[in-house]
Amino acid sequence: MTLNLKNLLNPKVKMSKMGEFQELQPIEGLEISAVSADLYGDGRDDLALFYFREGANFASVYTTSKITSANINWNLKIKRHFVKALMVNTQNANTFTGIKGAQGLKEIAQTLSKALTLKSSQSPKGVSEVVKITDLLFASTGVIGEDFPYLKIRNRVPELVKRLRVEQNKFVWFKAASAIMTTDTRPKLAYEECKIGNKLIKISGIAKGSGMIAPNMATMLGFIFTDANIPSVFLKAILKKVINTTFNAITVDGDTSTNDMVSIFATGKAKNSKIYNVLDPKLQDFEKALHRLTLNLAKQIVVDGEGAKKFVTINVIGARSTTMAKNIGFSIANSPLFKTAIAGEDPNWGRVIMAVGKSGENIIPNKVQIKIGNFLVAEQSKVAKDYDESEIKKYMEWNSIDLEVNLNLGHASFTVYTCDFTHDYIDINADYRN
Amino acid sequence: MTLNLKNLLNPKVKMSKMGEFQELQPIEGLEISAVSADLYGDGRDDLALFYFREGANFASVYTTSKITSANINWNLKIKRHFVKALMVNTQNANTFTGIKGAQGLKEIAQTLSKALTLKSSQSPKGVSEVVKITDLLFASTGVIGEDFPYLKIRNRVPELVKRLRVEQNKFVWFKAASAIMTTDTRPKLAYEECKIGNKLIKISGIAKGSGMIAPNMATMLGFIFTDANIPSVFLKAILKKVINTTFNAITVDGDTSTNDMVSIFATGKAKNSKIYNVLDPKLQDFEKALHRLTLNLAKQIVVDGEGAKKFVTINVIGARSTTMAKNIGFSIANSPLFKTAIAGEDPNWGRVIMAVGKSGENIIPNKVQIKIGNFLVAEQSKVAKDYDESEIKKYMEWNSIDLEVNLNLGHASFTVYTCDFTHDYIDINADYRN
Repeated sequence: MTLNLKNLLNPKVKMSKMGEFQELQPIEGLEISAVSADLYGDGRDDLALFYFREGANFASVYTTSKITSANINWNLKIKRHFVKALMVNTQNANTFTGIKGAQGLKEIAQTLSKALTLKSSQSPKGVSEVVKITDLLFASTGVIGEDFPYLKIRNRVPELVKRLRVEQNKFVWFKAASAIMTTDTRPKLAYEECKIGNKLIKISGIAKGSGMIAPNMATMLGFIFTDANIPSVFLKAILKKVINTTFNAITVDGDTSTNDMVSIFATGKAKNSKIYNVLDPKLQDFEKALHRLTLNLAKQIVVDGEGAKKFVTINVIGARSTTMAKNIGFSIANSPLFKTAIAGEDPNWGRVIMAVGKSGENIIPNKVQIKIGNFLVAEQSKVAKDYDESEIKKYMEWNSIDLEVNLNLGHASFTVYTCDFTHDYIDINADYRN
Repeated sequence: MTLNLKNLLNPKVKMSKMGEFQELQPIEGLEISAVSADLYGDGRDDLALFYFREGANFASVYTTSKITSANINWNLKIKRHFVKALMVNTQNANTFTGIKGAQGLKEIAQTLSKALTLKSSQSPKGVSEVVKITDLLFASTGVIGEDFPYLKIRNRVPELVKRLRVEQNKFVWFKAASAIMTTDTRPKLAYEECKIGNKLIKISGIAKGSGMIAPNMATMLGFIFTDANIPSVFLKAILKKVINTTFNAITVDGDTSTNDMVSIFATGKAKNSKIYNVLDPKLQDFEKALHRLTLNLAKQIVVDGEGAKKFVTINVIGARSTTMAKNIGFSIANSPLFKTAIAGEDPNWGRVIMAVGKSGENIIPNKVQIKIGNFLVAEQSKVAKDYDESEIKKYMEWNSIDLEVNLNLGHASFTVYTCDFTHDYIDINADYRN
């Protein structure tokens, strides 16, 4: 997304300070490194490692696709709620790579477990513990079906481990967030703080997105790190709840990937009092902070959607149920005709009507009201009385557009975030692999 | 679609003689006219009238959208199985046009019924009969939500009726098929013959398509005329059956319109022996001919999909059920990532895997086999042994591409037809209304 002056002038812009990055804070108990295995052939960083010397509680949510990558299969086999490290590679998804892909991943895991065990034995604190391959999580993103370059990756593991650093200034976070990108044009980072009891809790998160972003997370990776002390089962419950209205409320092209993964890791170093119940009021502030952080990352993914020039917020209100509102929201957000109209700055609200109609939800056409920005454009099955297209055309020049569909049937609502559909999307995807 | 030499050389091309139009034959009992009401402001024909002096049996299938145009609402009110005329306008969909849109349509119907009654009284055969407004069907296509230009249309009704001609040479059909186009670049026409008993039966059909073509017919109109003598209820049964694998097996962008309509009219003038049973073996030949004709029209719609440069046939076989095969076929056909890869002539079969996975169908990844053309590209969860990308890249330069997905689970199959996603789609739709 090109950020220009318009953005700053636009009162509707959703992300304040879009040109800036939040400064992420270090999370105690976490060490980070990123190196290049030259998978892209241009020397860019493509491997990232997140190491928890004393381990971390964690929870993950994975793609709903029926075909999953070797790394997702690997992660799903781990039944324990405690990990030592997460390693991420880009460029190759390790999906449909057969037995060789799975075996390659295992070799990498073995090499990594040895290197981390060695590192652990060199600990100044003298904490020496074997890092087992089942202590490791993996994430991959990139092309499907090409040989998984496990040798290239494995050979860089020692260096990756060697470079692990406790210090996490903003450049370290920026480097790690950049190392997990594919066609993203910028790294995605977010930071939040909250309190659990009287303890300050830090939450740092990074993500990657771009094409294939759809509900159910599509090709997106999101990694969240906190120093909170929260059991894994509660982390899972909270993560599932917040992504419902954040990572699962965005779409770029309606496609879903085989590799999606959102994980949260909690080192416990903040030493907050123990949590025995997911409904513990002490967790409310944490949940809110996690919601803000994941929504922030989700919006950054949409803004950086392949070829995206405009950010679109679709607010469906007055629905009979959240499911109804969500279906209608995504029916609009995934309509190529709607998305191209947004790209063309054409207030063609007929395409909103089309998408509401095709959703299959039992709406009452006569009750539907449609607003673009603050302008009522349609109600009572026709164009609004005071509809002034020139005014709305001006509004549509902004690079953040609000659409509201009021079904006037009930009190449920859902907000979907998406972007427009431009020439650049075609350019990026017509020959993605070359 | 630009038709070039490649097309003719391509042994895979689906539509023989794509550059040519079939010569439609006259259907006895039908009169046709087309005029311009200058709705586009450039003088092109935008009104078409199909008149059955002695009436016709008919059956219609309409859009599944929950929001429908005034003309669809009008047609749905007609409970009888016999009509006198069908009038079609383009440029304005008469959808979300409020009470005024419905009233405007009624005024047009009144004017048309008077003009046709007058014409009927002038019949040389002396057959004078009142044409009631309930004898009339209407179809509209174009922009949603703009005032329905009923005065402009109504004022041209007398001329439209005056120009009705019994003669239907190929130019008459071409003119009528052109008058129902919106962003179509060429009219769609098809002709078939068959026998019912010992009588020769003629079937002439026209269609319009372009953007918003999806299963459930989307923004498409299809009008089929035959001289067969078949009761309306049987016409309905046969029509519903054949469109399942023809008009409902195509997609351009996954969007569905508020105005879709496919109708068949039977004048009975072929005087075949009466049909008392929809399973009458005498109807088998007719059903096959109707299937060929609707498949032909459906393919013409895909080929002329907005911005389409390539025709894609997706054959899903070895499924547990037709529904499973259909869901997977459409999951692939509606994936923007797949469609842009086709546009880029990139054999990125990973996107086929992605789309198979996101369909939600319970496939077994290890059993899936994918073929592009005759080239096996993936099986056993990995790239095929003899995969030669350069060969397949050459194949993908053709403008008709075959994709086969064998699930190896059962014996059901479904074929979906679609096109690629190009820059031109964005151009056409970014500012459709201007």
